[in-house]
Amino acid sequence: MVITLRAGTGQAEIDRIRERAESLGLRTFLTRGESRTIIACVGLVEPAHQELVGGLPGVESVVRISKPWRLAGRAASAGSTIVRAGDGPGAQFGGRELAVVAGPCSVEGMAMLRETALAVRAAGAGMLRGGAFKPRTSPWAFCGLGIEALEFLAEVRRETGLPVVTEVMDTRQVDLVAGHADVLQVGARNMQNFALLQELGRIQRPVLLKRGLAASVSELLLAAEHVLAHGNRDVILCERGIRTFETATRNTLDVAAVPVLKAETHLPVIVDPSHAGGRAELVAPLAFAAVAAGADGLIIEVHPRPAEALSDGEQSLAPDGFAELMARLRPFAEAAGRTLARPAAREAA
Amino acid sequence: MVITLRAGTGQAEIDRIRERAESLGLRTFLTRGESRTIIACVGLVEPAHQELVGGLPGVESVVRISKPWRLAGRAASAGSTIVRAGDGPGAQFGGRELAVVAGPCSVEGMAMLRETALAVRAAGAGMLRGGAFKPRTSPWAFCGLGIEALEFLAEVRRETGLPVVTEVMDTRQVDLVAGHADVLQVGARNMQNFALLQELGRIQRPVLLKRGLAASVSELLLAAEHVLAHGNRDVILCERGIRTFETATRNTLDVAAVPVLKAETHLPVIVDPSHAGGRAELVAPLAFAAVAAGADGLIIEVHPRPAEALSDGEQSLAPDGFAELMARLRPFAEAAGRTLARPAAREAA
Amino acid sequence: MVITLRAGTGQAEIDRIRERAESLGLRTFLTRGESRTIIACVGLVEPAHQELVGGLPGVESVVRISKPWRLAGRAASAGSTIVRAGDGPGAQFGGRELAVVAGPCSVEGMAMLRETALAVRAAGAGMLRGGAFKPRTSPWAFCGLGIEALEFLAEVRRETGLPVVTEVMDTRQVDLVAGHADVLQVGARNMQNFALLQELGRIQRPVLLKRGLAASVSELLLAAEHVLAHGNRDVILCERGIRTFETATRNTLDVAAVPVLKAETHLPVIVDPSHAGGRAELVAPLAFAAVAAGADGLIIEVHPRPAEALSDGEQSLAPDGFAELMARLRPFAEAAGRTLARPAAREAA
Amino acid sequence: MVITLRAGTGQAEIDRIRERAESLGLRTFLTRGESRTIIACVGLVEPAHQELVGGLPGVESVVRISKPWRLAGRAASAGSTIVRAGDGPGAQFGGRELAVVAGPCSVEGMAMLRETALAVRAAGAGMLRGGAFKPRTSPWAFCGLGIEALEFLAEVRRETGLPVVTEVMDTRQVDLVAGHADVLQVGARNMQNFALLQELGRIQRPVLLKRGLAASVSELLLAAEHVLAHGNRDVILCERGIRTFETATRNTLDVAAVPVLKAETHLPVIVDPSHAGGRAELVAPLAFAAVAAGADGLIIEVHPRPAEALSDGEQSLAPDGFAELMARLRPFAEAAGRTLARPAAREAA
Repeated sequence: MVITLRAGTGQAEIDRIRERAESLGLRTFLTRGESRTIIACVGLVEPAHQELVGGLPGVESVVRISKPWRLAGRAASAGSTIVRAGDGPGAQFGGRELAVVAGPCSVEGMAMLRETALAVRAAGAGMLRGGAFKPRTSPWAFCGLGIEALEFLAEVRRETGLPVVTEVMDTRQVDLVAGHADVLQVGARNMQNFALLQELGRIQRPVLLKRGLAASVSELLLAAEHVLAHGNRDVILCERGIRTFETATRNTLDVAAVPVLKAETHLPVIVDPSHAGGRAELVAPLAFAAVAAGADGLIIEVHPRPAEALSDGEQSLAPDGFAELMARLRPFAEAAGRTLARPAAREAA
Repeated sequence: MVITLRAGTGQAEIDRIRERAESLGLRTFLTRGESRTIIACVGLVEPAHQELVGGLPGVESVVRISKPWRLAGRAASAGSTIVRAGDGPGAQFGGRELAVVAGPCSVEGMAMLRETALAVRAAGAGMLRGGAFKPRTSPWAFCGLGIEALEFLAEVRRETGLPVVTEVMDTRQVDLVAGHADVLQVGARNMQNFALLQELGRIQRPVLLKRGLAASVSELLLAAEHVLAHGNRDVILCERGIRTFETATRNTLDVAAVPVLKAETHLPVIVDPSHAGGRAELVAPLAFAAVAAGADGLIIEVHPRPAEALSDGEQSLAPDGFAELMARLRPFAEAAGRTLARPAAREAA
Repeated sequence: MVITLRAGTGQAEIDRIRERAESLGLRTFLTRGESRTIIACVGLVEPAHQELVGGLPGVESVVRISKPWRLAGRAASAGSTIVRAGDGPGAQFGGRELAVVAGPCSVEGMAMLRETALAVRAAGAGMLRGGAFKPRTSPWAFCGLGIEALEFLAEVRRETGLPVVTEVMDTRQVDLVAGHADVLQVGARNMQNFALLQELGRIQRPVLLKRGLAASVSELLLAAEHVLAHGNRDVILCERGIRTFETATRNTLDVAAVPVLKAETHLPVIVDPSHAGGRAELVAPLAFAAVAAGADGLIIEVHPRPAEALSDGEQSLAPDGFAELMARLRPFAEAAGRTLARPAAREAA
Repeated sequence: MVITLRAGTGQAEIDRIRERAESLGLRTFLTRGESRTIIACVGLVEPAHQELVGGLPGVESVVRISKPWRLAGRAASAGSTIVRAGDGPGAQFGGRELAVVAGPCSVEGMAMLRETALAVRAAGAGMLRGGAFKPRTSPWAFCGLGIEALEFLAEVRRETGLPVVTEVMDTRQVDLVAGHADVLQVGARNMQNFALLQELGRIQRPVLLKRGLAASVSELLLAAEHVLAHGNRDVILCERGIRTFETATRNTLDVAAVPVLKAETHLPVIVDPSHAGGRAELVAPLAFAAVAAGADGLIIEVHPRPAEALSDGEQSLAPDGFAELMARLRPFAEAAGRTLARPAAREAA
């Protein structure tokens, strides 16, 4: 932690700042420059320390040098964490094999869910996605089938062997959703819903944590840290586009976040090209880019008939479009040193 | 709703798009241009309609013409809504008198809360703020005193007559917080926590809804719509700075959001200059700017000794700084056609 | 300058980094923490030094402590700089009296320019604006009348006594424009056109420097530094809105930039509420907010018949709207400790 | 063009709006909805038309349906444009073979330039980059060797056969730079320096146009349109990262801009992973992502000894790092349906 002092800060203020830092267990080193004086603080710097000195008279700025995440950081793990979803062969995140999750934005009914599951499994997906509770910007939009959708997901899982992921939005529903799904998703709008993150830290189901629309990479790691700190070590991070001034795409896929995250954390990192681009024709190029940049997996919206989708129809692939994407993805995966399950192998499993 | 078709869209696809729109109760009008064809749809357009046609083959874009908020919009109310907090004289939002809320970021103890309350009341504030449950980016930071802080708030309210506002973060705590506070705050990070918004829609306490870091003005209005749609008509909107590329300030105060919101909605609009600027010396100029732009009120962080604050010390005013701000605020309030309670009047009340 | 080293950096690399820094005339101080080691460098740190050490092996990050602007910084001047435009009484920037510049986006002809000049002078403006060369996003849009417009500006200046400001876009036109206008404007899109800034540094006419759409406050100050470094000390800074995700307004007025800039620099700071909001009804509230936040002046688009304007009609005020704004502005100016010239006084001058 | 009217707009205003639109050669169609009335305008809509009706009383918004670029759009060309640089075999942009440009940020001297050129040619690059005139945020930073550097570039071109690209910053230097370089680069900060774009439109040398830090995809296409409209049809577009709130990388690579641009325009699109990420370790993953997303080429900073670079050392690759990148790039290029010149083939040429 480096404290820069305002010009003209007196000795009494400097002494007080050093005392405060030392009372926090840090050692302090003063360096006087021509125009500025700085105090370097070393020791086990806690995130809270920064603001405990930041308000003292004479302090111009406080910059942390060490990273504020402990459990999510690479130093906290011997190697990369592999998160397993369900008991099936294909749903591993963080290993050499690329994880591919596919399915509809919303579970609109049993028939369409089963149809989608069979199609994406045939194309090589290892896991099924489908929204039961949908966060909607407007209260007047379709908000999901709720509990009924959870039951459809559990049933299709039994039939197809595909583990399922669905979003949880309310601390009161964590146990309910965990009773039906293999992975619980935290949506972008809830990335800093700390009550929900804590509740998810208390269960033993993997959490798929989506990056918030305006969340920095640091904040995404700290959100994961909330889950880890409460006891759940299975967190999958998901880059899904951030909000910028550009309106040609729904969001701006921050593809550089993939290598940046992989360098910082032992947790698996996947990408959602459907929400990032917001248009069906962008899903394939963004998926390829994500894998080329080092992503551990993809989560893709597939609907049997996108034109009839109750939500996100513009960005959903039809089954044949998804199958084509999977076929074209293979050489990119291999170029990235990854394997991709053979569709046949998957169905036999 | 205006649907633009892709070049080369055939008659069969056009017919299908029109049928879909008409099945939603809309009338459709086709206009063929030299390079583009558009279908104008009129009638009672629902937000959901946009995506129900957006995925159809041939559709290039769908643009809504009417506004997606119904209850929050000006058309839904005969005049501006005045939200009353508690029974005291000073806590009205949306009337001619400027509402000023002040207090510490976090309730750190009974003594400091009482001291702050007395100081801000003496300077003319009409309401007390103080965090009991604090959303913190890092799980290792100070997270508030919780229920104990709620009791301190209720006690200081009894002693000073100042109504209190505090943040609620979890659907399970809504009743608890509503039992202690006059206004329930939804923090910026929870602005699109729809489960929480719905739960707040079911109670009869005013809600102070802060704009999310990357939320558009439209999304803020739609978040309010979630609360309104569930039955609670007392929502106060709060601009508190958005996230941009600029790092000289903690956030970028979007002061234009004030007149934009006032034109769109009948709900009161206040500004938080403390979080917007993130530095104590910016609080006064941003507060003046907010009032000059037409804000109905301010919410300001005040701590008896900012240098010792457990959170947000950099941006908290000391009591004398707050008193000076209030004195300098008066002519700006009057220039804006507002009144500001006299400190004396407030204490006598 | 504080250099943070990567974990595991060896002594040879540390020595090399210190040697590099010392070869630049800096003294270095090493501090070893538990997880990180830092090297504090003090002395006359040049902006170039940061990148001269940033690429060395072992360097994780380099943070400047001192500010990179020398001539634009407060330390470089005994007090605030007052920039004078023309010989008239009203065109001073940075003094106690608020500077108000008004006029059309583009000079569309002699009659409309004269009509606008008389109207804005009558309402109290002290200076006339009008575009001769217009930067247009599309090559197919109206690009200004060019030299003819410069002559109209010079003629109207003679007739009305109002000094004039107009934009210069090309190094080859600096002398031409300086021969007709009292102040030369650099548009937002040219804020980092360094060839143009240097050329403007060589003349003795004030420069009105608009903040770029994605320029930080630091970059605006460094752009001014380019002009100052080449010998021209008369630079007026102008906040005109930055580009963010918000689409409800044309740009997002960063009103906090006003007090931030005033604290950093001795140069005058004005605000353009017309481009910031992009809509006529937002001009007045944003102008009031700017003055409340401490701006030294305003630049406002006024057109005799906005509905017929060839550019920026949506955000232009008609003369009566401008006169009303000026009348309502007075109490805000006084609340901010400013004076505003009386229209009568202006016309008599 | 679709004009939405404000609620309550009277017949006289509607007539006036239709007259204005019809005077511009458009046909108008009125549609009255329950809450809104719209006027659809069809015909050859010019970009200027939008603002010519936007300021009329009663107009709430004007939305263009057709695209504002004519010459840059796909419709303006029978197929994709291939831009050829110099006479060598490797410098084609937009063909099946990937174009790879590499070299130092700044030309720091003849020896380092020659050394870099030989190294990048050996690794398979088809073109050399090197800055002679450098745009620098601070006037106190290294600004390039100027004309001397141009001569070094021309000399190294003769020696190696590699065509060269360098930046031009001033309208007065266009002929000078065109006399030494095969491609003229417009830097991000000058993307909307329209005087420069026009001047480049008058020469017959390819232009490498970098996207501005806050420029939308539309604005990039319109900047290219400025060059095309003045007669130069050889424009290469370059995505190099945009400015967002994220600080983990220097800029945010908008990888989706590649497929978005490729769909809109016949012009070649390349990516600069060095400036996008700003750190040497991010160059390779971002380069792979760019090619996977469909980029026609790459421009990469290579310095013989990055630790000694006078600018951009943090993001420059050493020759061996570049050679490794090129080797790893090959399978990604092939997966994308591209070829990559064999290093041997290149040297023999």
